[in-house]
Amino acid sequence: MKNLTNKFGRVRQQSEKLVSTLSPEDFVVQPVVDVSPPKWHLAHTTWFFEQFVLGNFDKTYRVYDEDFNYLFNSYYESVGKRVLRANRGNLTRPGVDEVLKYRTYVNEKMVDFLETYELTTEIHDIVELGLQHEQQHQELLVTDIKYILGNNPLFPTFWKNKENQQTGGNLHDRYTEVEGGVYKIGYEGDDFHFDNEKGVHQVYLQPYRFQSRLITNGEYLEFMEAGGYRHFEHWLMEGWEWVKAEKVSAPLYWHKVDDEWYYYTLNGFEKVNLYEPVTHINFFEADAYASWRGKRIMTEFEWEVACKKVEPRVDDQGNFVNSEYFRPKCNDNGHHQMFGDTWEWTSSAYLPYPYFQKAPGAIGEYNGKFMINQKVLRGGSCATPSDHIRHTYRNFFHPHLRWQFTGLRLAEHI
Amino acid sequence: MKNLTNKFGRVRQQSEKLVSTLSPEDFVVQPVVDVSPPKWHLAHTTWFFEQFVLGNFDKTYRVYDEDFNYLFNSYYESVGKRVLRANRGNLTRPGVDEVLKYRTYVNEKMVDFLETYELTTEIHDIVELGLQHEQQHQELLVTDIKYILGNNPLFPTFWKNKENQQTGGNLHDRYTEVEGGVYKIGYEGDDFHFDNEKGVHQVYLQPYRFQSRLITNGEYLEFMEAGGYRHFEHWLMEGWEWVKAEKVSAPLYWHKVDDEWYYYTLNGFEKVNLYEPVTHINFFEADAYASWRGKRIMTEFEWEVACKKVEPRVDDQGNFVNSEYFRPKCNDNGHHQMFGDTWEWTSSAYLPYPYFQKAPGAIGEYNGKFMINQKVLRGGSCATPSDHIRHTYRNFFHPHLRWQFTGLRLAEHI
Amino acid sequence: MKNLTNKFGRVRQQSEKLVSTLSPEDFVVQPVVDVSPPKWHLAHTTWFFEQFVLGNFDKTYRVYDEDFNYLFNSYYESVGKRVLRANRGNLTRPGVDEVLKYRTYVNEKMVDFLETYELTTEIHDIVELGLQHEQQHQELLVTDIKYILGNNPLFPTFWKNKENQQTGGNLHDRYTEVEGGVYKIGYEGDDFHFDNEKGVHQVYLQPYRFQSRLITNGEYLEFMEAGGYRHFEHWLMEGWEWVKAEKVSAPLYWHKVDDEWYYYTLNGFEKVNLYEPVTHINFFEADAYASWRGKRIMTEFEWEVACKKVEPRVDDQGNFVNSEYFRPKCNDNGHHQMFGDTWEWTSSAYLPYPYFQKAPGAIGEYNGKFMINQKVLRGGSCATPSDHIRHTYRNFFHPHLRWQFTGLRLAEHI
Amino acid sequence: MKNLTNKFGRVRQQSEKLVSTLSPEDFVVQPVVDVSPPKWHLAHTTWFFEQFVLGNFDKTYRVYDEDFNYLFNSYYESVGKRVLRANRGNLTRPGVDEVLKYRTYVNEKMVDFLETYELTTEIHDIVELGLQHEQQHQELLVTDIKYILGNNPLFPTFWKNKENQQTGGNLHDRYTEVEGGVYKIGYEGDDFHFDNEKGVHQVYLQPYRFQSRLITNGEYLEFMEAGGYRHFEHWLMEGWEWVKAEKVSAPLYWHKVDDEWYYYTLNGFEKVNLYEPVTHINFFEADAYASWRGKRIMTEFEWEVACKKVEPRVDDQGNFVNSEYFRPKCNDNGHHQMFGDTWEWTSSAYLPYPYFQKAPGAIGEYNGKFMINQKVLRGGSCATPSDHIRHTYRNFFHPHLRWQFTGLRLAEHI
Repeated sequence: MKNLTNKFGRVRQQSEKLVSTLSPEDFVVQPVVDVSPPKWHLAHTTWFFEQFVLGNFDKTYRVYDEDFNYLFNSYYESVGKRVLRANRGNLTRPGVDEVLKYRTYVNEKMVDFLETYELTTEIHDIVELGLQHEQQHQELLVTDIKYILGNNPLFPTFWKNKENQQTGGNLHDRYTEVEGGVYKIGYEGDDFHFDNEKGVHQVYLQPYRFQSRLITNGEYLEFMEAGGYRHFEHWLMEGWEWVKAEKVSAPLYWHKVDDEWYYYTLNGFEKVNLYEPVTHINFFEADAYASWRGKRIMTEFEWEVACKKVEPRVDDQGNFVNSEYFRPKCNDNGHHQMFGDTWEWTSSAYLPYPYFQKAPGAIGEYNGKFMINQKVLRGGSCATPSDHIRHTYRNFFHPHLRWQFTGLRLAEHI
Repeated sequence: MKNLTNKFGRVRQQSEKLVSTLSPEDFVVQPVVDVSPPKWHLAHTTWFFEQFVLGNFDKTYRVYDEDFNYLFNSYYESVGKRVLRANRGNLTRPGVDEVLKYRTYVNEKMVDFLETYELTTEIHDIVELGLQHEQQHQELLVTDIKYILGNNPLFPTFWKNKENQQTGGNLHDRYTEVEGGVYKIGYEGDDFHFDNEKGVHQVYLQPYRFQSRLITNGEYLEFMEAGGYRHFEHWLMEGWEWVKAEKVSAPLYWHKVDDEWYYYTLNGFEKVNLYEPVTHINFFEADAYASWRGKRIMTEFEWEVACKKVEPRVDDQGNFVNSEYFRPKCNDNGHHQMFGDTWEWTSSAYLPYPYFQKAPGAIGEYNGKFMINQKVLRGGSCATPSDHIRHTYRNFFHPHLRWQFTGLRLAEHI
Repeated sequence: MKNLTNKFGRVRQQSEKLVSTLSPEDFVVQPVVDVSPPKWHLAHTTWFFEQFVLGNFDKTYRVYDEDFNYLFNSYYESVGKRVLRANRGNLTRPGVDEVLKYRTYVNEKMVDFLETYELTTEIHDIVELGLQHEQQHQELLVTDIKYILGNNPLFPTFWKNKENQQTGGNLHDRYTEVEGGVYKIGYEGDDFHFDNEKGVHQVYLQPYRFQSRLITNGEYLEFMEAGGYRHFEHWLMEGWEWVKAEKVSAPLYWHKVDDEWYYYTLNGFEKVNLYEPVTHINFFEADAYASWRGKRIMTEFEWEVACKKVEPRVDDQGNFVNSEYFRPKCNDNGHHQMFGDTWEWTSSAYLPYPYFQKAPGAIGEYNGKFMINQKVLRGGSCATPSDHIRHTYRNFFHPHLRWQFTGLRLAEHI
Repeated sequence: MKNLTNKFGRVRQQSEKLVSTLSPEDFVVQPVVDVSPPKWHLAHTTWFFEQFVLGNFDKTYRVYDEDFNYLFNSYYESVGKRVLRANRGNLTRPGVDEVLKYRTYVNEKMVDFLETYELTTEIHDIVELGLQHEQQHQELLVTDIKYILGNNPLFPTFWKNKENQQTGGNLHDRYTEVEGGVYKIGYEGDDFHFDNEKGVHQVYLQPYRFQSRLITNGEYLEFMEAGGYRHFEHWLMEGWEWVKAEKVSAPLYWHKVDDEWYYYTLNGFEKVNLYEPVTHINFFEADAYASWRGKRIMTEFEWEVACKKVEPRVDDQGNFVNSEYFRPKCNDNGHHQMFGDTWEWTSSAYLPYPYFQKAPGAIGEYNGKFMINQKVLRGGSCATPSDHIRHTYRNFFHPHLRWQFTGLRLAEHI
């Protein structure tokens, strides 16, 4: 089990690297209910191993602090009471230092456990799930930190980039065609995958074509300047109500200063780069933009087939969290940007696949109970670990949310 | 155009018949935002003909009252300002008498118009749409009246049934199998249909079987008595939050009196009939019930294929609004209850079909802009006109709503 | 007890006269929580006699309908459950006709009772309280009807005035001085009065002077045109928040049409009369206006002393509901307008007088429990019965409310 | 100006002492809108000197950071835009260290200024106001920290007390009588005082008597055990609605554990001491308790006269923040507890005194604009600096708030 122990160490360390530039105060707040305090992410991912691995399988294990189950359970009804999600940001204690001690304690016990015990498949799977879970929270760490810093009027820098942003140039506008027919959808194989992508099954796709790159800030700005946020015609009704209620006129983090558009990036406050993929738009905005262009976005099934066609494997050189760029990159080398940069909104609702079964017990609460009123996103982003994403990976968010790195590409039927 | 004129007269008259037992006070209130005042339905359906037919095509037409566009537009952004939906119930003027005069005025002008003018296809289609639209509001009239009377502590009777409710008996529990493969979905033909069912296309279905009748009150009561509303395991997360926030423990209109379950029906307040199809449950409840039984509900595609198989045409003898029963009927003759009785929740999100195009102008706001966060329902109910429903007909509501006649049947993969 | 029987008949009849121009639909709605449906007022005042007189003292009395206690109790916790205040407007049954039958039934039983039984002081007092209570609801009937009709885009006329509104002219601006010293406050005597004005006691007043008439629309318009609603300086903080949240820029019922100010009056929609007393302003507006003029409004004690000085008795010729004018009148004859026209906001919080005792039982809930977060108003209005008002009469409303006929006069310390 | 410089140093240092036990995380959160982050208090009080002293009078002064006016203005409309009060807790930057640097910078400039410039009366007064302002925020620091730590499930200790809490014993129940007559109210003299206590004037008081100590936890528990929170009779209507909506059954910070009452104090979580004055009750609770005892609380005028009678000067030995006890003390030495321990709710609404004038400019926003919907409290608490309180000092809070150290004593008319 050397491999698992190594991966455990690598993944756990990465979480701590991501918060290395924060001040203690940055760790504690929760400006909106969807954004959790960084401290909470660090502790909750640790609680996962304590609760589901050590607590269940290591008979010698002594719980670090009895109160932490109450404090750091997220949404597992099966595992007892928990702090209301909206109150996570009121907990100043335990402090960051204590949470880091908690991590060290659990890390040591886990490494002992992984190296000492004979791991059954069941244990192996739950440890792997814990690591995948931690990688998901790494993405949330980045986006939640961006929200916390990006709503501070001082716009603090999170990460200084070594190189400067490219100025782009090669904005090819090609489309790739896919024939109609029956395709296989869903995960097939023996490696890790979530229950929501299991249940490989057939889907009939009508013929379509899809764009060879992501939509850029410059293209999105054309929509804005054409009155995109002022005309109801291109909006879903709930989207239009959202625009009016929130008085929205640009993607999240954009600000107009002296008649020019700026945005907050994790590298600081700067002028909008027109060649960079647009991000921090919600489903309503993606859908309205596509409608205004006379096109549409893909279903998740169309996306999966398209991706397998043009990017048959995940490219380690893509713009993932590993590249420490923390923002989408201009497409200057003609690749398709299916993986990394920004998650792509699809037009599919997040629903169970045929044959979907939720796991028994608490782990069964992982995915299935969220399958209502959410949209599927595909492909990962600049905040996703490169070894976490797959062709069949299904991410999901409510259609009004914008704080993730979310963008779009166009498509249409042939 | 004799046929159209006849249908116009018949449909318009039916709306007035449905409100014939109401007092003037019943016409005016709006107890919750989803329920519109009966008076408003009568006027809004009339406004539709005034706005989209007479106003557009009859050059001699003089608008009945200039204020009525503001008062009786529902959601057409293209047609100017309108009373906020939540304020419909504050309008005591124009009164019912005035609204009926308005109907008479528009009816006369419409009949003149239909008999005098040479009707283009465009005009014919918009008149037909207006009649279909009015039939949809007839269903809402029945359910909104039920809400208004059923939330009054006096529980007034809306309609006295001639015969008494059957006691049921033949609760067969058969399943019909459907082979896996590619099926055609969507409306094909030349008769009236909505834009949302157009775009006939192929869908691959995995093999499944479906129940031969609707779930009954008695079966649903077993779920309740097994603690269905107290255990989170079978609920979607948003459903479980709804149960807790609203303290739900039974379908809408059910009341426990001296330890026995009663419900309000449009025939009055009475003991729950265990053999009648359960109704006034929302998607969350339908889904939780199916999960508790270890089964599931169908997708809208599975439903369409299933329905064509076992009920190849709409049966005029089914329990529609025409039968003036105003509640689902016990299944005592072994038919499948695909049409009528209660709408069936499907697991499908309400989304555009491939090739969906919304019509240009205001009519384009009819369906497309609602395609988010709603679930598809199929088959019509005891409040649906029998000539309004089809195999391909797609109804849609938000998953938390219960005031429609909504029920379910079970299914599973083979 | 002939007098009491006569008064009973007169007061009860007056309520019905006030609703004689309404349509059945007008009786049922509740556009905001503070406004009750006219039907509810008619029934609730009847319930008061049934509950507190017939039910308690007439052994032969048979309750008209057992459900009505639940339906028409207002806020008496002692008398059992009741319909939530916010749901009054959803009750379409019993209809107006039924409510009028209920009134007739209780009227007949009451007249029998008053003429047959030997009335103790206790009974006499509770009947008198019931009549005073009904007079209070007559004022609410007028203001609630104004709200219902005045928020209808058709602006229906409630009452056609025989004569036209005077054009004013004599806007004298005199002040009357009152010496500092100890004054007696509170009701002394044997006639009817509420518990909240009892407890005659001494109050020291610093010397002051008060204006000899009410502030007019014209004067208030000067405040508006000087930016009164745009500058925070003259507003209490909660008032300023109200202005911003509600985007207020004029008194209730005022509308700007083609750059001129109009308002809805119970006589219809018309141009604002600059000489009429301003009304439908809340405490925040009264206070801000006075502050802007460099003056203030009186305390309720200053008002009581002032009123006794210049209008030693209630003038039957004043502009009360009896005059059927239903709006304040221009001051063209030099009287002080202490009584009638509009209630005057005072700067006093509504608090118990020294020695205040609430009555035992349900009647004790009449006044005392409202003594928090409300301001005292004095003098009655054009909607108050002339035999209902007194020098010592204390009315009270929350400072943000505007739907009553409320106005102001200025004062200052000497 | 040596005295002023000394006081400046002493007061400023005391703020920092009060936060000396906090972790960086404790400084940043805002669990409810009324509670500000400790960091914000430290910065806002500093901003006051920068804005109103250095910025106005020291021509050589360079603002520390231009953004801080936006960040740390509280409610002064005159001084430009500011962070919404509800968002104070989302600002993780500037951090505590930076805020302390800001304090040091302004402190140095202030001391230079105080020692170098010739101070006019105007400058002297605004510096003195700044110090009084800081003392007010010191009280808020203590109560806000209590809220932050007391709502953490870990119940961290803020301050370890040297001695243990006395067990009480001498719960004398004496009343002192005050004759009816005209009394002088308001501040007279030349020392510092707020504008809201100025305007010395005469008030007539009816004869009364008042209790010689504060009400204890033990006495309040009798009210609770007699069903105080379950019977509406003793509650103001808005109080009763609060009890039901919030499901209140005890003072703030009380918890029932294994059928015994505990509370969070700044010394930790412990069993309720029955002899200690009850605190963290709101006006509704104080009023209901007094009503249940058949008594009442005093008006602010009665309190002022009573206090001058029995405690003619502020006693330095009283239980103020200086004693570092941070909770009310048992009354074991027979003193009246008029000053310190807990603020006493009075029955008076917070209103302007006769002759009240607000100061011109921003300073005029200090008190006057809050004079609506609040109740006056008198006497200071265990969190008040002893040199901050006076007989004439008027504190004020909304009647539903409980997070201050608030209690009561009884009184009645003779």
